[in-house]
Amino acid sequence: MSPDTELYILGCSSATPTANQFPTAQVLKMRERFFLIDCGEGAQMQMRRSKISFQKIQAIFISHLHGDHFFGLPGFLSSLHLFDRRKPLVVYGPAELQAIVMGLMKAQGSRLVYPLEFRPVRFDQPEIIYDDEVLSVQSVPLKHSIPTVGYIFREKPKPRHMLKSAIEKYDIPWYAIDGIKRGDDIELETGEVIPNEQITTAPSPSYSYAFFSDTAFVPENAQLLSDVHTLYHESTFAADKTELASKTKHSTTHQAAEMARLAGVQRLIIGHLSTRYDQKEALLKEAKSVFPNTVLAQDGLNIHFP
Amino acid sequence: MSPDTELYILGCSSATPTANQFPTAQVLKMRERFFLIDCGEGAQMQMRRSKISFQKIQAIFISHLHGDHFFGLPGFLSSLHLFDRRKPLVVYGPAELQAIVMGLMKAQGSRLVYPLEFRPVRFDQPEIIYDDEVLSVQSVPLKHSIPTVGYIFREKPKPRHMLKSAIEKYDIPWYAIDGIKRGDDIELETGEVIPNEQITTAPSPSYSYAFFSDTAFVPENAQLLSDVHTLYHESTFAADKTELASKTKHSTTHQAAEMARLAGVQRLIIGHLSTRYDQKEALLKEAKSVFPNTVLAQDGLNIHFP
Repeated sequence: MSPDTELYILGCSSATPTANQFPTAQVLKMRERFFLIDCGEGAQMQMRRSKISFQKIQAIFISHLHGDHFFGLPGFLSSLHLFDRRKPLVVYGPAELQAIVMGLMKAQGSRLVYPLEFRPVRFDQPEIIYDDEVLSVQSVPLKHSIPTVGYIFREKPKPRHMLKSAIEKYDIPWYAIDGIKRGDDIELETGEVIPNEQITTAPSPSYSYAFFSDTAFVPENAQLLSDVHTLYHESTFAADKTELASKTKHSTTHQAAEMARLAGVQRLIIGHLSTRYDQKEALLKEAKSVFPNTVLAQDGLNIHFP
Repeated sequence: MSPDTELYILGCSSATPTANQFPTAQVLKMRERFFLIDCGEGAQMQMRRSKISFQKIQAIFISHLHGDHFFGLPGFLSSLHLFDRRKPLVVYGPAELQAIVMGLMKAQGSRLVYPLEFRPVRFDQPEIIYDDEVLSVQSVPLKHSIPTVGYIFREKPKPRHMLKSAIEKYDIPWYAIDGIKRGDDIELETGEVIPNEQITTAPSPSYSYAFFSDTAFVPENAQLLSDVHTLYHESTFAADKTELASKTKHSTTHQAAEMARLAGVQRLIIGHLSTRYDQKEALLKEAKSVFPNTVLAQDGLNIHFP
């Protein structure tokens, strides 16, 4: 398994799926952890197509309770049960999700064979909801017709690279290496201190990814994205539909791109385009006119972090 | 729209879908009515692929509450709402279905724009649950790990064919024709009675279709199928897995075929084959050894009634 950070777009349709466009679901692979972000109907079929192992998913993040963002969750959780998963699984999302999902599981007449935990998110303020030694996840309230959050996934600084030549030169014992990768200097038996910079090189870059769907345009949220590398932002409508976007609490191409520009991210991915648009390239062009490094989401697209 | 009776297999996978096999869902077109039978995850995408109009569905029949038979229902019902359906829709199935589905709709924050009615089925005895001038539907308790019913759709006798030559010969007024097609004789002004057989020919055949999935082998149910033309019977396992089938309350190829043979149906369709079987043709062969006119269900298959 490559240690790269990668995003798999399983589905990015809005509202109603079509024959070949699945509703919202993504898998983010970051620091060898796999996170499922939203789980629209058919997400499990799309995961199979992308050859992502169901068992690798360790947490699921649901943005809101519109069906096109979570109606695939009961089926995915049931499949894990049938595949005899034993590892725990955590689902982050609106508080009502637990009763809904467990009601469906009960109707099926079976108790899940794996521990499933629901952790409700807040809609009044951003919150760090997950934090381990290599990454953190923050929920961010968005502005939609029902309570909705976005999620920001941030890698922590990676270890520095140890110079092999230094290990030989200073006869560095193996147990010291982890500390050196974290920035420790070394002290030789002579008492001489060798500064870390002389025995390591800079770490590989750390990435961050923000998922903002569904949401109206909220310029103030840009400040939360200031350190973000790649932003997925919904762009349900074309630029000429600002009023409709505002009414339905969605964003236009220009608004998604403006958010990327304001935040100063490196890359924007637009998705959740209304199924009314056959010519999605035209919407991409609109977004690019404001923020050139924009990518159009497509089912099955695998996006690498450089 | 052709008046033919047709069955569309949208999905026929068991338990967990694969990349290219959707869980159970079918559409039966009978006497220009469209019925959705079970609604596994992804049924709405499969309906789009089969080019079946969502709006034409007038009733939905759910066999039981295992996810692979109804987890596509919330998404389908939501899509009808988004498509601004106004016609009423009736869902037949286990009583708990109403609370489950309406809970999901409530979570989405919107009230459906069309009238949706749930009619619970009985698990203690067969019952005619739908009856109109051209067809009837009967629910039949099956034997599975949770309460489950099968459904039998029966066309009533079709109208006799009026002979055009008779209309001219006896100068039959247009308002008499419906009655004649139903079997009325005519009385001429002279008082002479012309028997119906002389002015009509026999009606086109009426068909019937039974959907039995999921179920263990229950030979006594064969008597309920004695007038059935085409039987869809689950056949989750190969013939050598009788014990496993019995334990999980499913059927084998031989049992499905034996049911068709006992009932004396014209045609058997086997489906719901376990995903463990890559070579589904081998299972078809097993069923055919007991009941030759057996068809293997496949996603996207369109089955005509002769």
